[in-house]
Amino acid sequence: MTMETRIEHPLPLGFKFSGVACGIKESGSLDLGLIVTEADSVMAGVYTQNVVRAASVDWNRDLTPTDQFRAVVINSGNANACTGEQGVADNLAMAEQVASLVSAEPAQVCVMSTGIIGHHLPMPKIKSGISDASNSLAHDPSSFQNVVSAIQTTDKFSKTASHEVTIGENKVRITGMAKGAGMIGPNMATMLSIIMTDAALTPGNAQAILTRVANRSFNCISVEGHTSTNDCLILICSGHSKTQIITEQEIAAFEEGLQEVCVPLAKMIPMDGEGATHLITINVNGAQSDRDADQVARTVAASNLVKTAITGADPNWGRIVSAAGYAGVPMEIESTKLCLNGHTVFDSGQPVSFEASVVSQSIEQSNETVIELWIGPGAGTATHWTSDLTTEYVRFNSEYST
Amino acid sequence: MTMETRIEHPLPLGFKFSGVACGIKESGSLDLGLIVTEADSVMAGVYTQNVVRAASVDWNRDLTPTDQFRAVVINSGNANACTGEQGVADNLAMAEQVASLVSAEPAQVCVMSTGIIGHHLPMPKIKSGISDASNSLAHDPSSFQNVVSAIQTTDKFSKTASHEVTIGENKVRITGMAKGAGMIGPNMATMLSIIMTDAALTPGNAQAILTRVANRSFNCISVEGHTSTNDCLILICSGHSKTQIITEQEIAAFEEGLQEVCVPLAKMIPMDGEGATHLITINVNGAQSDRDADQVARTVAASNLVKTAITGADPNWGRIVSAAGYAGVPMEIESTKLCLNGHTVFDSGQPVSFEASVVSQSIEQSNETVIELWIGPGAGTATHWTSDLTTEYVRFNSEYST
Repeated sequence: MTMETRIEHPLPLGFKFSGVACGIKESGSLDLGLIVTEADSVMAGVYTQNVVRAASVDWNRDLTPTDQFRAVVINSGNANACTGEQGVADNLAMAEQVASLVSAEPAQVCVMSTGIIGHHLPMPKIKSGISDASNSLAHDPSSFQNVVSAIQTTDKFSKTASHEVTIGENKVRITGMAKGAGMIGPNMATMLSIIMTDAALTPGNAQAILTRVANRSFNCISVEGHTSTNDCLILICSGHSKTQIITEQEIAAFEEGLQEVCVPLAKMIPMDGEGATHLITINVNGAQSDRDADQVARTVAASNLVKTAITGADPNWGRIVSAAGYAGVPMEIESTKLCLNGHTVFDSGQPVSFEASVVSQSIEQSNETVIELWIGPGAGTATHWTSDLTTEYVRFNSEYST
Repeated sequence: MTMETRIEHPLPLGFKFSGVACGIKESGSLDLGLIVTEADSVMAGVYTQNVVRAASVDWNRDLTPTDQFRAVVINSGNANACTGEQGVADNLAMAEQVASLVSAEPAQVCVMSTGIIGHHLPMPKIKSGISDASNSLAHDPSSFQNVVSAIQTTDKFSKTASHEVTIGENKVRITGMAKGAGMIGPNMATMLSIIMTDAALTPGNAQAILTRVANRSFNCISVEGHTSTNDCLILICSGHSKTQIITEQEIAAFEEGLQEVCVPLAKMIPMDGEGATHLITINVNGAQSDRDADQVARTVAASNLVKTAITGADPNWGRIVSAAGYAGVPMEIESTKLCLNGHTVFDSGQPVSFEASVVSQSIEQSNETVIELWIGPGAGTATHWTSDLTTEYVRFNSEYST
């Protein structure tokens, strides 16, 4: 699946952008991006839970949250993961070079890397790339778009979203970019996302809001469920709108706006899943808690048998109900109900007679499939998004040879 | 992959076998098996952890363990799962019919079903099948083989294993059969296994030994990790050899013999995995506990990116190390080491230079791939077996339409 994305709102104030090609990608495509704030800014972050982490992830975690953020540099084509001490030194060198170019300290600079695992960064190329990028920084849509392109790996389309939130009589802008289509490995993508706003937040509030929104967006997507070594999501708040986000109402309004950016961005990743022909939305209801519902949605999303059924437009509900059954959470089978694209196929623990061809056509004729599952009378709910599993995914991930 | 299996040892004493075709499978293949013991026997069982369970699983769990077992009836082609009250009644009818034919109580009869989910059993066919089977019971290899065939669904080869254990001056025989190639769904297989011995064990000892051996065999395999609604493993001990398994040494000897039957049987399932071209063995060492090692092996085995790398004969070690990293257990990256088919590709948290083409050829030229991973200096170890993931798997599971 591909789609067109465009930013519908003005870029947040206080940011400059640059994306260049420095030769990490053999194709000559853009592969180094730089985002600089005009002044010290607030930054919050959410990072991969993988205990095998890229040097950049450890670096960013140590800085987060902060109110002295100045820049983030991103390279694609090489993840700088599983690269030992040399990887740590290379990551530091990137932060130091950017810091000196923007008159800041290294600890004010985030670093993100994505691409092949286990190879050392080509530092001469990266150094000249950072230098070039720092000479072409600008606050305009084409510079922004260059960063969006520079962070991509196996993505088939660029992923951006924007929103404006009215706080009292003022407007603040939220704009985000993301990349990702598969999880890791040579020529494979990992998830990176950078969200920018000109609202003014404290580091603590920014971090709390970002964590909550991540749990309802980027933490609810999967392609094949392989958690990468490099996942980073950061929120940068320049404060340039002079609009403070302090009261409960302001926080709620901002959080809703942030979610309006993060959910569409997150959904674009499984939509662009390697080889995917369907975005699958999984709504779980009736669980004893949201956490239980999340676990069921996650388990259904990870089932290859569910994914291949959707690929084949097969309303094979037994695969979905049985996947829910091994999620490790309580289910009341008598209250279990399943709808596929709005058609009820299983109810009260009993098969329901339905027109298989009609449900099959509803799957076949749309590139989005909606699975709604009730697992009991509880109030817990969750929504996850995933890709289907096609022969093209397997071909893409098996026909490469190092 | 296919293979030939044959029973190398005499059948255990005290059992009679029969397999017939009663028309559940449209192909006309054998689809109903019956195993009867000559007298009350000990039976232990291990069942699916799925909370969505077939009627037969609940029935068997209630009987287990017992010293009054008399028969097990197995049908393939229909799982009798997600079939509500009618499914429970049909399951009871099967047990009642078998019981009356062998002069026993229904609670002395196990029932196993495997095949399509969510359809009611064709009871007239099953009734005539049970009647036919009860008329042709015999203690001979061809009757045994008929049961082996009758329990298969998408299996490409029959799965049997046998062993003889010397206890003091006596010999006891252990013989097992299994079926399984994928997890669930229309025309899909679920895992069933029946192990028979003529040793004499108490129900408590039989259950304890079977649970331990299952945790080192059938609980260490996966094809796509989708836990089925119907999995059953039972051990039947006729006691006909008059050899008691009571002392610690006797239990240890019997347990080792049981493992000699269960591990090869278990490995045959991913070897026959739908579309599989490689059996993948994953050895994890150096964990803080066996449980941690098990969790890492399970996570690596479930990774589509690891599976597709093996399909493509790609020594893409980053996918394996990163999968271990998200297993949720501690890893000491400095002590991490990875060998692929005996070639070290990652050591002490650093990439190792190796001949990729040599490792690739070692994967390509064998239908077994061995992954050995060390995650720290601990003593915890585990071994899992899984299949690779091919376009054929996806085709098989997506090109079916209900």
